Amino acid sequence: MRIPIDARGVYPIAPTPFFDDGRIDTASVDRLTDFYLASGCTGLTVLGQLGEAPKLEHAESLAVATQMIRRAGKLPVVVGVSAPGFAAMRALTHEVMARGAAGVMIAPPNTLRTDDQIVGYYRQAVEAIGADVPFVLQDYPLTFSVQMTPGVIRRIVSELPSCVMLKHEDWPGLEKISALRAWEKEGALRHVAILTGNNGLFLDYEMARGADGANTGYAFPDMLCDVVRLSAQGQREEAHDLFDAHLPLLRYEQQPGVGLSVRKYVLMRRGLIRCEAQRRPAAPFTAAAKAEVEHLLGRLARHDRRAAVGAA
Amino acid sequence: MRIPIDARGVYPIAPTPFFDDGRIDTASVDRLTDFYLASGCTGLTVLGQLGEAPKLEHAESLAVATQMIRRAGKLPVVVGVSAPGFAAMRALTHEVMARGAAGVMIAPPNTLRTDDQIVGYYRQAVEAIGADVPFVLQDYPLTFSVQMTPGVIRRIVSELPSCVMLKHEDWPGLEKISALRAWEKEGALRHVAILTGNNGLFLDYEMARGADGANTGYAFPDMLCDVVRLSAQGQREEAHDLFDAHLPLLRYEQQPGVGLSVRKYVLMRRGLIRCEAQRRPAAPFTAAAKAEVEHLLGRLARHDRRAAVGAA
Amino acid sequence: MRIPIDARGVYPIAPTPFFDDGRIDTASVDRLTDFYLASGCTGLTVLGQLGEAPKLEHAESLAVATQMIRRAGKLPVVVGVSAPGFAAMRALTHEVMARGAAGVMIAPPNTLRTDDQIVGYYRQAVEAIGADVPFVLQDYPLTFSVQMTPGVIRRIVSELPSCVMLKHEDWPGLEKISALRAWEKEGALRHVAILTGNNGLFLDYEMARGADGANTGYAFPDMLCDVVRLSAQGQREEAHDLFDAHLPLLRYEQQPGVGLSVRKYVLMRRGLIRCEAQRRPAAPFTAAAKAEVEHLLGRLARHDRRAAVGAA
Amino acid sequence: MRIPIDARGVYPIAPTPFFDDGRIDTASVDRLTDFYLASGCTGLTVLGQLGEAPKLEHAESLAVATQMIRRAGKLPVVVGVSAPGFAAMRALTHEVMARGAAGVMIAPPNTLRTDDQIVGYYRQAVEAIGADVPFVLQDYPLTFSVQMTPGVIRRIVSELPSCVMLKHEDWPGLEKISALRAWEKEGALRHVAILTGNNGLFLDYEMARGADGANTGYAFPDMLCDVVRLSAQGQREEAHDLFDAHLPLLRYEQQPGVGLSVRKYVLMRRGLIRCEAQRRPAAPFTAAAKAEVEHLLGRLARHDRRAAVGAA
Repeated sequence: MRIPIDARGVYPIAPTPFFDDGRIDTASVDRLTDFYLASGCTGLTVLGQLGEAPKLEHAESLAVATQMIRRAGKLPVVVGVSAPGFAAMRALTHEVMARGAAGVMIAPPNTLRTDDQIVGYYRQAVEAIGADVPFVLQDYPLTFSVQMTPGVIRRIVSELPSCVMLKHEDWPGLEKISALRAWEKEGALRHVAILTGNNGLFLDYEMARGADGANTGYAFPDMLCDVVRLSAQGQREEAHDLFDAHLPLLRYEQQPGVGLSVRKYVLMRRGLIRCEAQRRPAAPFTAAAKAEVEHLLGRLARHDRRAAVGAA
Repeated sequence: MRIPIDARGVYPIAPTPFFDDGRIDTASVDRLTDFYLASGCTGLTVLGQLGEAPKLEHAESLAVATQMIRRAGKLPVVVGVSAPGFAAMRALTHEVMARGAAGVMIAPPNTLRTDDQIVGYYRQAVEAIGADVPFVLQDYPLTFSVQMTPGVIRRIVSELPSCVMLKHEDWPGLEKISALRAWEKEGALRHVAILTGNNGLFLDYEMARGADGANTGYAFPDMLCDVVRLSAQGQREEAHDLFDAHLPLLRYEQQPGVGLSVRKYVLMRRGLIRCEAQRRPAAPFTAAAKAEVEHLLGRLARHDRRAAVGAA
Repeated sequence: MRIPIDARGVYPIAPTPFFDDGRIDTASVDRLTDFYLASGCTGLTVLGQLGEAPKLEHAESLAVATQMIRRAGKLPVVVGVSAPGFAAMRALTHEVMARGAAGVMIAPPNTLRTDDQIVGYYRQAVEAIGADVPFVLQDYPLTFSVQMTPGVIRRIVSELPSCVMLKHEDWPGLEKISALRAWEKEGALRHVAILTGNNGLFLDYEMARGADGANTGYAFPDMLCDVVRLSAQGQREEAHDLFDAHLPLLRYEQQPGVGLSVRKYVLMRRGLIRCEAQRRPAAPFTAAAKAEVEHLLGRLARHDRRAAVGAA
Repeated sequence: MRIPIDARGVYPIAPTPFFDDGRIDTASVDRLTDFYLASGCTGLTVLGQLGEAPKLEHAESLAVATQMIRRAGKLPVVVGVSAPGFAAMRALTHEVMARGAAGVMIAPPNTLRTDDQIVGYYRQAVEAIGADVPFVLQDYPLTFSVQMTPGVIRRIVSELPSCVMLKHEDWPGLEKISALRAWEKEGALRHVAILTGNNGLFLDYEMARGADGANTGYAFPDMLCDVVRLSAQGQREEAHDLFDAHLPLLRYEQQPGVGLSVRKYVLMRRGLIRCEAQRRPAAPFTAAAKAEVEHLLGRLARHDRRAAVGAA
């Protein structure tokens, strides 16, 4: 199955679960995938920035992606294939597509500056991986230092039919969604799915701006699914109530670097992965930070019983 | 009065109020200053990044700073003097100190990279402005692209006795506060005040980590004062309850660029400044964004009646 | 006099001469200006990046610019007015234009990334200084981290009639000159003067690509004048012979940071300024570096007797 | 054989030769290696930044490295193993060391900023590849945006005994060599080889500052060998005469991006590789640029008959 052009809902960014000794925890990979399915996720993304992709040997990357693709069954699985050169990007793309991936996600290298450089990069990436492979354009200036205007995104979408989704993580980013959707309405831009990132920090307003859902790794993807569903059903205040209850934790988890530690810790506390372990390099996760996360979970549990994870 | 070494509480970053035609609205300068006093603020900062300092003529900068210093009476007023060269920094520093400023705030130029460059810059800045002028070290990597480790801050504090306060805006930043306070406890670092920025996004946990308060521009500085006070009194859950109610708006206001528009709009809606006008260049503030802010205010008003600002 | 649209020749970037105690050496300002006139320079630029502009008090900046403008007589004098805000840029522009400046030079702030941001910045700068003030567009990515494609320069030149000159310092940059001149030939771009920078490092080939001359601070502007003249007269190999003789020193002087020390030292050794002093901050200029410069001058003197400056 | 701690001379950065259809030209790999041996090179580096390493499939990288290692016989061959993650770095390192590589070269990722981040990165890299693998520290701020002070280099050399060579490409960089050698003289730093880069742009003075030779890709490595030898023999002016004759071309070849095109073109014209072809992405190399290179070769041939390559 390929990424549908009218994708919507929640594509969580899957972490890669490890045991404390650094081996991949394949049972947790299955448990996590099953949980995404059960939560109402409509797709998922593996080997993203937060999936610790660069810490995996090539064979491990393939194994994790393949396992998730098989386990996810009918759900489309997108694989991150960003690489310092097109040779590696092409190789991984062909391998995962052959194993049933729904498409790939490509982030821009942080050396790109001008509009032409950005468009040129994606043109060459498509030449490398093949125009038949659906790809997700990742627009994440905070991490990649590459700033794409709406006009640049329009150029990429217009020139490259295999661009089927925007992973939108600009900050601020609400006006960008509005600008793209206004062009679409005017017939100046074909439709692509817009799923938003930034851990969901603005999901409460992004839906009304025209986003189709979320493509991010917050440790309660089930909450993201609920917010998207409530928004779609017109239950706006209910969506905000649920979102606001999660915002203190969500904001805490969105911190660069340490965020992945928080995420894995919460997933472990929820019983979804067995260990919070990361491979190195990893930001330190101190006792003070853990206590803060426990405090946040405790406060959240008053509003959402999914956060009632018992004593640490 | 000079910035006290044991400063604590809230030093709001004051915006510069304009009329719609771009003239400075001096009545609003007074109203705002009076409000800060009445809210329990313990100091204030003018001509910061968000005070639109670079858009003011030199004479205007002096006039705004002088008016605030006089109106604030016993409150210490810190003046932002960051400049592309030491000549301009020295000139403005001497002028505002002569008019009663409590000290100055210095941000690092975004070309600094190595530890030695950063320390060297502050050493030269102190030579330029004089070692008798108390200064606030602004650590704001997100905006200035300069990363100061705890070790660099310790070097600056140790070498330069006139450094009396850290405006802490690193992100993530909680561990940095803990590291500095741990050194202080061990006797490895003298005490400096740590007031936090980032619009207060982590103030709820920063207080317990050892921060002395906030030095930021959120449009409800009275809430920041309450959170600092509740934290100091040990009413931790009450502090979190109040903070969490504000977090949806606070997070929205913390967006780069558009954040100042939100802040001025809310201050206007609260009756604290007359116009939301900014001088150019200013990020656009669309009707959709305004409606979102009104929605956020409406939801906030259910928890904090200070947000009940009536219909727009 | 205004910068002519068909400017050509050499506009040296003038350093600001200081005494060892930091005072401005006005006699050297005059001597330098007279030398530029006598050398065949066709204009000059003051208060550039290398004129130590940020180290001058405002009154000093005005004084230096005014002295050069008066002394230069019929030569057009361009004044650098780059500033962190439009208020300061406008103020300085109006003051120097009132004193007879031929135009101003504006560098982009290093936070600009997208094509639209760059064009928008210059649009707003022109609104600030007035559309009647001729300006030089400085394209210097190595120092300012702002990358302007030929297309962006075309947009700026097309939208803003007061843009009359490009100070071209991209690296690599030869193809950019060719691209702009090709558009001009096709009628797709109006003519603007292109004077090149980078200390003249590629002047030998830039002339044939379509440059009109140089706008840089190499300590032998008389050599630059000769190369431009020989090129214009079709004496290409003679131009290269002279240029190549200077290249070892020129390359040495082009080093970031220390380059200004080398330049001032050589100008002092040539008797054109009295002291090599810089105001702080200044890169260290070690004894080893001085000995290397003397060695370079000695070797150069075998080919160009202007370098025969006697024993140090 | 391992990289000797007292390495000296010239380690050229080998390009990867391709046919016009993109296949690797193994005959040219041999010819190039033989030429390096015959020219007096004392080692060589493959899969560097300019070896188009990211454009190779993994198997191709291994094949090229292995071929060079075998062909080079007694010459130590260093392999570039920079990668976005330690997993890939470790894998490639182990493969090439098993095939006889003398060590590896590691460039810092361009996200590193603080001194601690830089030192920490190399500490983790050594943990990943093993403390028994000699490595070359690449200090190239212009390309990697990472600034290493002499103090940081000292920390790395002191903490990590497997650091045996510095590829020095800072700009300006002469004082850095002097600083490191002064520490060595004082006994504050153990000896590591310092081979310089930047296409050799300052080799004429770097030798006297304490460099041991060059580690760069200029298309006349035989000239670099001569300059190093003449310098070592005390024939300083002869070294400068030869170097200065090459400087116009060397400077032209040092341009970012297009430099590799120039280098491959000159190597082809010298008969050392068969095609000038690069894999994509490659900077355009225009007819005008080619004509300039031919002109430079023609002028150089008057001083060095190795540049007499016949008509294009």
